[in-house]
Amino acid sequence: MSKGRLEAFTDGVMAILITILVLELRVPEGNTLGALRPLVPVFLTYVLSFVYLAIYWNNHHHMFQLVDRIDGSVLWANLHLLFWLSLFPFATGWMGENHFGALPTSLYGVPLLMAAIAWTILERRLIALQGPGSGLAEALEDGFKEWISLAAYLLAIPLAFVDPRISHGLYVIVALLWLVPDRRVETHLAERRV
Amino acid sequence: MSKGRLEAFTDGVMAILITILVLELRVPEGNTLGALRPLVPVFLTYVLSFVYLAIYWNNHHHMFQLVDRIDGSVLWANLHLLFWLSLFPFATGWMGENHFGALPTSLYGVPLLMAAIAWTILERRLIALQGPGSGLAEALEDGFKEWISLAAYLLAIPLAFVDPRISHGLYVIVALLWLVPDRRVETHLAERRV
Amino acid sequence: MSKGRLEAFTDGVMAILITILVLELRVPEGNTLGALRPLVPVFLTYVLSFVYLAIYWNNHHHMFQLVDRIDGSVLWANLHLLFWLSLFPFATGWMGENHFGALPTSLYGVPLLMAAIAWTILERRLIALQGPGSGLAEALEDGFKEWISLAAYLLAIPLAFVDPRISHGLYVIVALLWLVPDRRVETHLAERRV
Amino acid sequence: MSKGRLEAFTDGVMAILITILVLELRVPEGNTLGALRPLVPVFLTYVLSFVYLAIYWNNHHHMFQLVDRIDGSVLWANLHLLFWLSLFPFATGWMGENHFGALPTSLYGVPLLMAAIAWTILERRLIALQGPGSGLAEALEDGFKEWISLAAYLLAIPLAFVDPRISHGLYVIVALLWLVPDRRVETHLAERRV
Repeated sequence: MSKGRLEAFTDGVMAILITILVLELRVPEGNTLGALRPLVPVFLTYVLSFVYLAIYWNNHHHMFQLVDRIDGSVLWANLHLLFWLSLFPFATGWMGENHFGALPTSLYGVPLLMAAIAWTILERRLIALQGPGSGLAEALEDGFKEWISLAAYLLAIPLAFVDPRISHGLYVIVALLWLVPDRRVETHLAERRV
Repeated sequence: MSKGRLEAFTDGVMAILITILVLELRVPEGNTLGALRPLVPVFLTYVLSFVYLAIYWNNHHHMFQLVDRIDGSVLWANLHLLFWLSLFPFATGWMGENHFGALPTSLYGVPLLMAAIAWTILERRLIALQGPGSGLAEALEDGFKEWISLAAYLLAIPLAFVDPRISHGLYVIVALLWLVPDRRVETHLAERRV
Repeated sequence: MSKGRLEAFTDGVMAILITILVLELRVPEGNTLGALRPLVPVFLTYVLSFVYLAIYWNNHHHMFQLVDRIDGSVLWANLHLLFWLSLFPFATGWMGENHFGALPTSLYGVPLLMAAIAWTILERRLIALQGPGSGLAEALEDGFKEWISLAAYLLAIPLAFVDPRISHGLYVIVALLWLVPDRRVETHLAERRV
Repeated sequence: MSKGRLEAFTDGVMAILITILVLELRVPEGNTLGALRPLVPVFLTYVLSFVYLAIYWNNHHHMFQLVDRIDGSVLWANLHLLFWLSLFPFATGWMGENHFGALPTSLYGVPLLMAAIAWTILERRLIALQGPGSGLAEALEDGFKEWISLAAYLLAIPLAFVDPRISHGLYVIVALLWLVPDRRVETHLAERRV
């Protein structure tokens, strides 16, 4: 079973999600700066969710470079990931339009957490299929960032009720953590060529 | 005629449909749990429709692995399938927003039924093209799940007026039936390699 | 310059247009048959526009099977076609929601006419590039259906003000004309193989 | 690392953006010519933004023809470009619905300017990766149009407050400048073949 169509479908869904996000930026009435002001939190949330989806696409792209075999279980593990990603626009809209209130801030963490879990399941499934000595297993063996992210989401969800700003800080820190270039896959690809 | 572009177009349409569904989950006003309550039936219907579209994509992917030849009639049989799938977001939205009322529950079954019929037409057309001894013909010869599904939809449409919960039960059972891994195509692909 | 990316982009835009159409089928309030009645003209217009976009995708697919070379002018001729196709959802929505009034019926013909002209330009440009003895030139030399369609749109636009039903009839006849399988390209592909 | 998936994802996002634009052309109530009148500025802005996105897709297509290698930094430079392009529908809707007021006209220039800067970053990154003697470096060395465009956007943003028509003129002139065929890449591809 070839991975081409799984990649194409995933690219399609992620491309649509990343552009549907922007539909929450509704065109305001009036043409003054004041009319734009209520859009500021919506815009900031948009940027955060855009970065998260970009990170997922990027990591998906990297991980599948080292994948040679897939099966039916991988298709479903991937669809499970896409399900949680598909809730990002809703969570983004709710947090943005409520000016970062406690409950929407907390709930924004739920699809983040579930997508991270779905990612881990997909990753484990792929490693099992490629075999223990495979490039994928070696490249992803420590999973340090994955565990930090899960811990941060688990903290951010309840702490939003103490102060939403703690959760915002955690969401931003995790995003920055992933923006720092992750050389594991590229290093491995380079070594393979030698 | 190559199947690549048919697969790409189908992936595109399905990727869009599966993400358009989520637009029915409209961002509520207010930031309390109470504001989310009316969304519960919408969300449950969303999950069901997401699973149905995921099943169709998965089965499409599997079936076309065994397809070597297509022609103009396959393009139209495939577009006919996409037409009925394209009505899923509408049927989903109507059932979800009306809290599973009798008529919307009944009508939800219509695109399900028509898509199942369109699928059968596409499958028969492809088997005819590949020839009677082909892998596709052998892999799909019994069609047991297909007949169960058609029967369930035909029951669910009128029984919604007796009690919508019967129809919901049938819709969920059919979805679960297809989620159970279908090994026919994968078994065949594995045998072919031997 | 390879045609792969032009095909992929075109498939993407057409897949989105064909699914955006369905957004005009807005979920009605209320869960009675009466709530669905105003949607009947919207639904019929949806079916018509779906068929038109499906025909364009189908013909695009067929035509590009015989294309070996493209250049920058083909990219723009193709984008010009996509521009007019992108107005289908608007024209569809306006005609459907106004119950087939005279002006919306007339205006529905404008993107149809312009897309047909854009198609002709793209076709001529491609034939010129492939050369006079090419398979594309031979397969498409008569262009009978193209001329009939242009004439029908040119009649339908003014005649909507006499009686919109004349225009509806013309739009449906042209669609049916193209649904009848067009064997020119397939015949040519089959001959080439001999 | 192969460029195929980056191209496919970019095509997906651009295809969606170019079709989401048309959602701002909301179906008017009433079926008279008068009901269409308020849509005229929305339509004109739509045409302008469609052309800009088409130019970006076209240039992206051309540039990547000469690209042999990409890395993680290219993925992010490309996502950065897509971020600014994703704001086109919002900027288009705001300018169109406010009948070309001063502030929306000025702000329309911001994503144009930022996308042009993001384009330049992507271009420089790609040239650095392909090496100084590469075809890409030679084909794009002067960058005349890129500098003219940046200057025009930098002028259009403040001058909208003097008279929005100056900015509209600048936006249209830059678009026309890019519509004039740019033979640099095609010339280079032709030479390479010799």
